[in-house]
Amino acid sequence: METKGAAAASVTIRFDKSGEPGVKLYSYFRSSASFRVRIALNLKGVPFEYVPVHLVKNEQFAADYRELSPDGLVPVLSDGDVSLPQSLAICEYLEETRPEPAILPADPIGRAQVRALALIVACEIHPLNNLRVLRYLMRQLGIDEVAKDDWYRHWVENGLLAFERQMIAFDGGHRFCYGDTPTLADICLIPQVFNGQRVNSDFSQMPRITEIFERCMALEAFKRAAPSVQPDSA
Amino acid sequence: METKGAAAASVTIRFDKSGEPGVKLYSYFRSSASFRVRIALNLKGVPFEYVPVHLVKNEQFAADYRELSPDGLVPVLSDGDVSLPQSLAICEYLEETRPEPAILPADPIGRAQVRALALIVACEIHPLNNLRVLRYLMRQLGIDEVAKDDWYRHWVENGLLAFERQMIAFDGGHRFCYGDTPTLADICLIPQVFNGQRVNSDFSQMPRITEIFERCMALEAFKRAAPSVQPDSA
Repeated sequence: METKGAAAASVTIRFDKSGEPGVKLYSYFRSSASFRVRIALNLKGVPFEYVPVHLVKNEQFAADYRELSPDGLVPVLSDGDVSLPQSLAICEYLEETRPEPAILPADPIGRAQVRALALIVACEIHPLNNLRVLRYLMRQLGIDEVAKDDWYRHWVENGLLAFERQMIAFDGGHRFCYGDTPTLADICLIPQVFNGQRVNSDFSQMPRITEIFERCMALEAFKRAAPSVQPDSA
Repeated sequence: METKGAAAASVTIRFDKSGEPGVKLYSYFRSSASFRVRIALNLKGVPFEYVPVHLVKNEQFAADYRELSPDGLVPVLSDGDVSLPQSLAICEYLEETRPEPAILPADPIGRAQVRALALIVACEIHPLNNLRVLRYLMRQLGIDEVAKDDWYRHWVENGLLAFERQMIAFDGGHRFCYGDTPTLADICLIPQVFNGQRVNSDFSQMPRITEIFERCMALEAFKRAAPSVQPDSA
């Protein structure tokens, strides 16, 4: 277990491989976009320094953070001199700079199918359940907690049902979302399932997602990326 | 000008290059995700058959379309035997199967920066302004037209301001979003500007986006992809 409660300070997390100094992840334990990058880094065995950015305390709007991330979002990956936002762009960057083990298939059709699954989560579900969107619904539109949770569950359940159908339409019989090893699709799916569980989403119509979730969460790379074991998880 | 009003039938649009039969784009003229793929196909000179799917008439929920697209979204690209959803996955697929002219830079950092800009549009702006989201706001949450347009403008203006800042942070002095030729970032930006214009968004704080918009819309590949010149534009 890592050191807890170091909300403002940075915390170095060491993994099995070493020799890649200079990789920092600006992350919030509960951000599912940060969670995706934590999984990708772990799968590829890239050691990184974990820098917590507390979204509920609005640390993402601090001037020095806005220099790294003009739109005040997490995650940001710093790799030496370069700082990159947007979790999927970061994952593709990691795939291009640390190709092994691969998180995308080798053939263009397989790559497109994995990316399409990842984008169902990243474009059709997650943006609607972002903290800032929920804040707008409550503050500007005046909706209550019940309506907010209904909204959240609606997009999670509809989106993940579409994910399940699309995954089966692409190819039904593998151990993970695509093939026998975790890909970018699993990297996006698992954090979204965590989010769905937080609002008691109904997963009963998603047997394949449920199975893949259990299989992924048995892996060290996913376990170590979970919100509850991050240094800023209070 | 292409044939108009062929809402149900498919319409073959011929471009300058030929010899790639079997590419079909399932599209709705006003869908900005479809618009992205139309630009990418045009930039790469890929001829395609345009198949209109009328979202307001709910044609995306027809059983035969749901076989192509389990989540009932446009666009879908059919390339020979394979059908692919999700506009960014389609663009990456086109880049891998028709590499010239490139819509991503050659180096991993440049590629990550272009993808990050594209994802600001695809993950932070567009999902909040989707037809189905606007329908939920009006039908389930009972908001009126004024509140709906405020919502729409809020996410467009905040998102594009973040885009402008991020683009400048990456690199300030090129003709397009990144470098001197259009990339995936321009492919995502331009349709989003069209959407913003529809709700009278304020672009006065976005001089660089405004300049790039004009430069792109002077190009044939962008002009031919515009909503108003699609066969299903009534």
